[in-house]
Amino acid sequence: MGKLGILAGAGELPRRIIAACRAADRDFFVLAFKGEADPAILTDVPHATVRLGAAGEGFRLLHEAGVAEIVFAGGLKRPTVTSLRPDWRAAKFFAGIGYRALGDNGLLSAVIAEIEGEGFKVVGADTILGDGLAPRGAFGQLVPDEQARADIAHGIAVARALGALDIGQAVVVQQGIVLGVEAIEGTDALIARCADLRREGPGGVLVKIAKPGQERRADLPTIGVRTVAACGAAGLRGIAVEAGSTLVLDRAGIIAAADQAQLFVIGIEPG
Amino acid sequence: MGKLGILAGAGELPRRIIAACRAADRDFFVLAFKGEADPAILTDVPHATVRLGAAGEGFRLLHEAGVAEIVFAGGLKRPTVTSLRPDWRAAKFFAGIGYRALGDNGLLSAVIAEIEGEGFKVVGADTILGDGLAPRGAFGQLVPDEQARADIAHGIAVARALGALDIGQAVVVQQGIVLGVEAIEGTDALIARCADLRREGPGGVLVKIAKPGQERRADLPTIGVRTVAACGAAGLRGIAVEAGSTLVLDRAGIIAAADQAQLFVIGIEPG
Repeated sequence: MGKLGILAGAGELPRRIIAACRAADRDFFVLAFKGEADPAILTDVPHATVRLGAAGEGFRLLHEAGVAEIVFAGGLKRPTVTSLRPDWRAAKFFAGIGYRALGDNGLLSAVIAEIEGEGFKVVGADTILGDGLAPRGAFGQLVPDEQARADIAHGIAVARALGALDIGQAVVVQQGIVLGVEAIEGTDALIARCADLRREGPGGVLVKIAKPGQERRADLPTIGVRTVAACGAAGLRGIAVEAGSTLVLDRAGIIAAADQAQLFVIGIEPG
Repeated sequence: MGKLGILAGAGELPRRIIAACRAADRDFFVLAFKGEADPAILTDVPHATVRLGAAGEGFRLLHEAGVAEIVFAGGLKRPTVTSLRPDWRAAKFFAGIGYRALGDNGLLSAVIAEIEGEGFKVVGADTILGDGLAPRGAFGQLVPDEQARADIAHGIAVARALGALDIGQAVVVQQGIVLGVEAIEGTDALIARCADLRREGPGGVLVKIAKPGQERRADLPTIGVRTVAACGAAGLRGIAVEAGSTLVLDRAGIIAAADQAQLFVIGIEPG
């Protein structure tokens, strides 16, 4: 394996990938996106920082660093063309694909094709992190009861329809009522707002699945300890993710947090 | 026309229907739902207040008041069965329909059938209010430009899919990006959160359409002056509603507010 280029956005994923590279004694280089990546992760790490719209500079830095493979790490707030201020390289790319017409997933696929056209190999974060993808079955001690299973089934139907429109990956359902649906605000914001929308009785369930045809090397659904803690704080009773298509950050920590908060976390096969 | 029974929930609709009855010198009786209707509207008005789950008492009050027609006025936060505490009449109804399996629209249709089974005629709020339903075309001075028209078209596609799942009626799209999607939180909360999700450049558009097969005598999409003001405050550039299927509260006020805030408001036929 050659040197790994880590395209670092928001969240805890970049830090985890850096740690995994160090543990495996693998060479890496972090290209951090300004305003997205947490600058604290860059201390004592070979890196450069670029604007999201500066594609030409980004490619130059990755080539100069001798990167062979590239991994997408962490969230990027999707910018408008106005805020992106694309350089000539990015502008050429957007002119070719028609930025406005593409959903997140279509855009990511086009970006990956462009990066591979530059001679890099793009790999999924799951191939680098030890915990990899969610297995099938319950993570901790609790399993969903009949009402929760019905809510999961309804959540999957809703999330599929959302995903087919390339809108979001997550939905919260309580006793058959769709409390909230994720668009660009992200799963954390969805969970937080569902705390206020909660009805009496058994709590809701967070269902998070990959979009149909999702580009698996970027923006795979992700859960971590923070997700479990947020769901507990919002009065949800469990989390269902898609087995084999969800990136698991710190599986042992997730299990401990779920048992502690008395939530179920389960990997399902939506079929 | 016999006496009108006004089933009053939240928002400004009950007050407007009361005013319309007075202007038309029509007899009416308000059945206000506890915790939903604003008690201030009940001053000097023939009324009673009931819990949402007390269907038997509600029917008795409507019969005793000599009501002939019934109109749904204003929003109700959909309760869980637990919080509803159904009386025997409501429990019998829910046992018959399978509460948990129904979306909002399916539930409303079942409720209307039940009310009509009691001998009342259920009419739409649009038949009582002078301004009625949204016409086709721009309300005020502004019309959508090319980007806004593209955002409206995308919003319609998303809202249709949401509506087919009986989730929500509204969506906000900015430059092709779906900023937010309405579930149970309601349109006002959707608009407010999109203020924080706003991207640079031309602002987003609120698209609000009826669900396919929507029960038109209850929960028709509604816009009022408050909707326009909220969209202006959130940095949106316009509102598109479905012509012929959207209840317009105070058309003159909406036009004035839209021109003042430099927003477009347009009635469209999604086709």
